[in-house]
Amino acid sequence: MKYEEYRRYMQQTMDLGSAVALLSWDKEVYMPPKSIRFRAQQIATLSAMAHNRFTDTSFGESLKKLKDEQTLTESQRRNITLTIEDFEKEKKLPSSFVEELSRTTAEANHHWALARQENAYHQFSPHLKKLIQLKRDEAEMRGYADKPYDALLDIYEPGCTTQFLDSLFGNALPQIIQLIQKIKGYEQISNDFLYTAYPTDNQWQLGIQLLKNMGYDFDYGRQDISAHPFTISFSPEDVRVTTRVDENDFSNMTWSCIHEGGHALYEQGLPAEEYGLPLGTSASLGIHESQSRLWENHVGRSMAYWTYWFPLLKEKFTSQLREQDSKSFYHAINRIAPNLIRTEADELHYHIHVIIRFEIEKALINDQIDVSGLNDFWNEKYKEYMGIDVPDDTNGILQDVHWSHGSFGYFPTYSLGSFYAAQFYAKAVSDMPNLETEIQQGKTNALLNWLRSNVHQYGRKYLPNELCKKVTGEGLNVDYFLKYANEKFLDIYC
Amino acid sequence: MKYEEYRRYMQQTMDLGSAVALLSWDKEVYMPPKSIRFRAQQIATLSAMAHNRFTDTSFGESLKKLKDEQTLTESQRRNITLTIEDFEKEKKLPSSFVEELSRTTAEANHHWALARQENAYHQFSPHLKKLIQLKRDEAEMRGYADKPYDALLDIYEPGCTTQFLDSLFGNALPQIIQLIQKIKGYEQISNDFLYTAYPTDNQWQLGIQLLKNMGYDFDYGRQDISAHPFTISFSPEDVRVTTRVDENDFSNMTWSCIHEGGHALYEQGLPAEEYGLPLGTSASLGIHESQSRLWENHVGRSMAYWTYWFPLLKEKFTSQLREQDSKSFYHAINRIAPNLIRTEADELHYHIHVIIRFEIEKALINDQIDVSGLNDFWNEKYKEYMGIDVPDDTNGILQDVHWSHGSFGYFPTYSLGSFYAAQFYAKAVSDMPNLETEIQQGKTNALLNWLRSNVHQYGRKYLPNELCKKVTGEGLNVDYFLKYANEKFLDIYC
Repeated sequence: MKYEEYRRYMQQTMDLGSAVALLSWDKEVYMPPKSIRFRAQQIATLSAMAHNRFTDTSFGESLKKLKDEQTLTESQRRNITLTIEDFEKEKKLPSSFVEELSRTTAEANHHWALARQENAYHQFSPHLKKLIQLKRDEAEMRGYADKPYDALLDIYEPGCTTQFLDSLFGNALPQIIQLIQKIKGYEQISNDFLYTAYPTDNQWQLGIQLLKNMGYDFDYGRQDISAHPFTISFSPEDVRVTTRVDENDFSNMTWSCIHEGGHALYEQGLPAEEYGLPLGTSASLGIHESQSRLWENHVGRSMAYWTYWFPLLKEKFTSQLREQDSKSFYHAINRIAPNLIRTEADELHYHIHVIIRFEIEKALINDQIDVSGLNDFWNEKYKEYMGIDVPDDTNGILQDVHWSHGSFGYFPTYSLGSFYAAQFYAKAVSDMPNLETEIQQGKTNALLNWLRSNVHQYGRKYLPNELCKKVTGEGLNVDYFLKYANEKFLDIYC
Repeated sequence: MKYEEYRRYMQQTMDLGSAVALLSWDKEVYMPPKSIRFRAQQIATLSAMAHNRFTDTSFGESLKKLKDEQTLTESQRRNITLTIEDFEKEKKLPSSFVEELSRTTAEANHHWALARQENAYHQFSPHLKKLIQLKRDEAEMRGYADKPYDALLDIYEPGCTTQFLDSLFGNALPQIIQLIQKIKGYEQISNDFLYTAYPTDNQWQLGIQLLKNMGYDFDYGRQDISAHPFTISFSPEDVRVTTRVDENDFSNMTWSCIHEGGHALYEQGLPAEEYGLPLGTSASLGIHESQSRLWENHVGRSMAYWTYWFPLLKEKFTSQLREQDSKSFYHAINRIAPNLIRTEADELHYHIHVIIRFEIEKALINDQIDVSGLNDFWNEKYKEYMGIDVPDDTNGILQDVHWSHGSFGYFPTYSLGSFYAAQFYAKAVSDMPNLETEIQQGKTNALLNWLRSNVHQYGRKYLPNELCKKVTGEGLNVDYFLKYANEKFLDIYC
């Protein structure tokens, strides 16, 4: 096999993956209400075809021979190395196991949705139990140096371990809680005006305007409505975002647009010539989330950003914002308060939501705790870390879809993303002292160019922590986030 | 291979085909403007995968063994027989040929679009020449009993031949021309009011209403906007239609909705348990077109239909229809006049457009006439049969996309569809004497049920002409169409 043949084979496998992505996008966005039966089958068939192609034994053998080819460029060699790693990992899971996991997940997801509707965790827990057993089996098959949970973390964040997260979160959590306590000493900000009626058409237009201004290219993308916002890529030349619009909640759409826009800029910035190859994909979920969080929080919740945008906003929503100025608006969108739902959390409480999930996952996978009383365990953690009472399972343990999808080890990447974002953004500001002034003028193209050349263009070339070192000179350091958070929120509240 | 394995294999191949269909639908409906590069590649890859799966040698051998299985039901046996026939046909074209044809077609289509824009047939003709050579080669590979063109006709209409069409059109054309001549003796109908401003939102709502009323099930389908209306199926439980809305042309959307609705009802009525198998697909393009034409013309352009709908229409478009009643409206939408563009033709001239294309295709494939002066040949035919001067290539030989797609032998199925429609509808009326009265009351469910049980449920079980015999007691007989046309249009004009 020549490199060109390898590339073609990988691209064709990706073509199957892209078709699965389109089948999934359509399912969330435009599929008729009762068309799920054959659609589910189509997604399953094409996913299995892609998996079978990728784990084909003769492909694996050719890969190993290709590795010794002397004429490969550095990038080509990196692609081969990563493909061999992926091949070895995928090969560890027998097809029968993949199928069982897929079947169990489909059932669990169905029963999670029902249990959530009925507000009854005990309806979901037998399915969760089965899933966790399978995920423990998966961890054993994948292998790990220290803890079984590490094998699952590695799926989403290559190189991430229980030990690393214990140390990271162990350091961050008390400092976040301490900052929250300090803030509690000051007068609470009112943000009621964000929850008055904002006409949905105007919101939608604003979202499109914000995306365009960020540099999201509508020639190679589009935005549609879905129940839960997401970003999906069918190629670096077709990257789509979705959002939702709630007439009575201005924040719902606005920051989801900016967040998904951040994800989409990363996907649109991946090298098109590496389509289907490791260097054409993102470094990790954590790095992906760093891009969405950087835009959402460091740009989209900054005073500089709304210095430019607030006057335009006020033209669009004159009556709603009559009594506000850019500063009061900036304060309102950065209000800190404990809450029940992760996806609605502020920048500080968000990490407490994640850490609670991390602690539960770790206990489930490493310590094999029982799932039957897990909702009580959940509720105790919320009381302990946030001081709030969880009223029911729907607003507690059943709020997130992830576990019903078999995704354990996914949640921590959300916090990793924020921490990477703070560290990257600090470097961007130090590289471009003018950045804040430019943002005040509605210009973010220098920032986008910086992200393109420091992060996007590399795809999966570097491991997440290596990439972080390359960009910022050091590995992930949560102090950047803590410094940012302390300065920002104490400035707002004091 | 057991029947169940065969079924699974076929379904998975269809899953690939359905993904190709979704990739194509999205391309026409929602794909961002510059995303074509990877999309084209994805469609090509998955199409080739489906073709390779279907023509796999060991699958072919298993098929032949399965045929001798004693326990098969009649339907199962029919599926196997048809699959073996398809397999043998597909096998005749080597992959290298399929690829060359696909490449040449892509180029030809690109140059057709440019030539059409520039109004310059000579820019397209070298590509057309290459394509025709390939299609002649294809005809030789596929094989035929009499004429090479027969091999191409058979792709779209199994069993159809040059000889059959010569006789059919040779009989129909003079009678259609004679009827047109008669009509010319009467006062022409004015239809100017159809080309005043009809707000597009209202038109869209009307289209949805008409589709629902026909029985098109939006739980298993949807309508979107595209440049050219089409129907596409991803499964019998996800059948979509598209339309276009022109504010200044009421007919543009209305009858395209009814036409595509007719196609879609057929697809929604195919047996879901036969998904991926021959019995789960339509009998032929001609039979497919019979369903769209039956709804478009026999229902949607009938006095009975508008007896019910016109008063509702007048509520929606009061000012536009102020001076009309249901009868004047019925006359206007059935105005007969020669015209340049096939897709805008009336029910009579439509067949002249088709017959001209048939004569040219026949000459190109069977008699190997030269393509360089084909536009003159085209223009002469329009002068001879319709008495009109074609002003330029864009409104002449370059108007249709079909040839640039390599589709030769496709056009005749449009007329076959109309002729089948007239014959089926005559039988439906004789089976259900109340039908017209019901249509006057806005009820078409009896008609749909009749089509479901007489046509849709069988899928590809019968050859088109066999199906026609089964439904009506005789093979295709153009007299039904001629009788219908004479009665309808002489009644309108006299």
